[in-house]
Amino acid sequence: MRLEIWHVGKTKNKWIHEGESQYLQRCRRFTTIEEIMLPAAKSKSATAARKEESESILARLQRAPKMYTMLLDERGKMRSSVEFARHLENTFMHRGSSLRFITGGPFGVDEKVRQACDEIISLSSMVFTHEMVRVILLEQVYRAFTILRGESYHHI
Amino acid sequence: MRLEIWHVGKTKNKWIHEGESQYLQRCRRFTTIEEIMLPAAKSKSATAARKEESESILARLQRAPKMYTMLLDERGKMRSSVEFARHLENTFMHRGSSLRFITGGPFGVDEKVRQACDEIISLSSMVFTHEMVRVILLEQVYRAFTILRGESYHHI
Repeated sequence: MRLEIWHVGKTKNKWIHEGESQYLQRCRRFTTIEEIMLPAAKSKSATAARKEESESILARLQRAPKMYTMLLDERGKMRSSVEFARHLENTFMHRGSSLRFITGGPFGVDEKVRQACDEIISLSSMVFTHEMVRVILLEQVYRAFTILRGESYHHI
Repeated sequence: MRLEIWHVGKTKNKWIHEGESQYLQRCRRFTTIEEIMLPAAKSKSATAARKEESESILARLQRAPKMYTMLLDERGKMRSSVEFARHLENTFMHRGSSLRFITGGPFGVDEKVRQACDEIISLSSMVFTHEMVRVILLEQVYRAFTILRGESYHHI
């Protein structure tokens, strides 16, 4: 079982980096997990930056190994933490043993990236910063593993 | 305009504390905002801890100034960031100039606390750690102010 998490741009906030590290380390009790950083756009305008980052994601996807890929976007399908855990389990069972998550940059991604992904998932109908999305996703992945293993981390 | 954020237990993770501080400071450009910490339960079991923390919240509510109060709970009403911003604006206009948010401890709160609050709101249908909820809430409050002022922080 192997997870890849793609994100755009280096984390600027030290506290975000620490949150990511904490949950990455915890997730590694359960699975191989790799973070892949794509370069942030040099363009300053939102539209140009989104286009530049989307092209970089698409180019990287073309040369990356085939793998079931979930894009994170607030307009995607929302699940409870328990539903998300069951969905990960099903995906691993029916779609192969590797799974890729793509989180975009600060301006999101173009329609072409949406189409290139197998599924679009959402953590909330609210917009979070793309940096916070990384920590929240890692915490949910960790939570999912504890739910599937029946460990005591998740309450309710 | 004044905001109160009640939370249960001292933040154990330094990175969470830094995230909270960053967004508290940013929010203070727009409003007076105060964090109030209630003691974490001494009980070890989830049920007993939830009861103990709920009683402490209710006791504090009884002696606190009357103020429109929103409880954070994943079963509450979910809004997009823009809807949340408009809702805050309406609440300030029609419910008085002060607003209180209550985030529970790791095991949530009892039904009595739900009933004592004016409204139950949700950041996601997923369960987040009660510590991460503090940072996510503060970021959404900051985002709401930038949306209402037409500043460039929020995209899409």
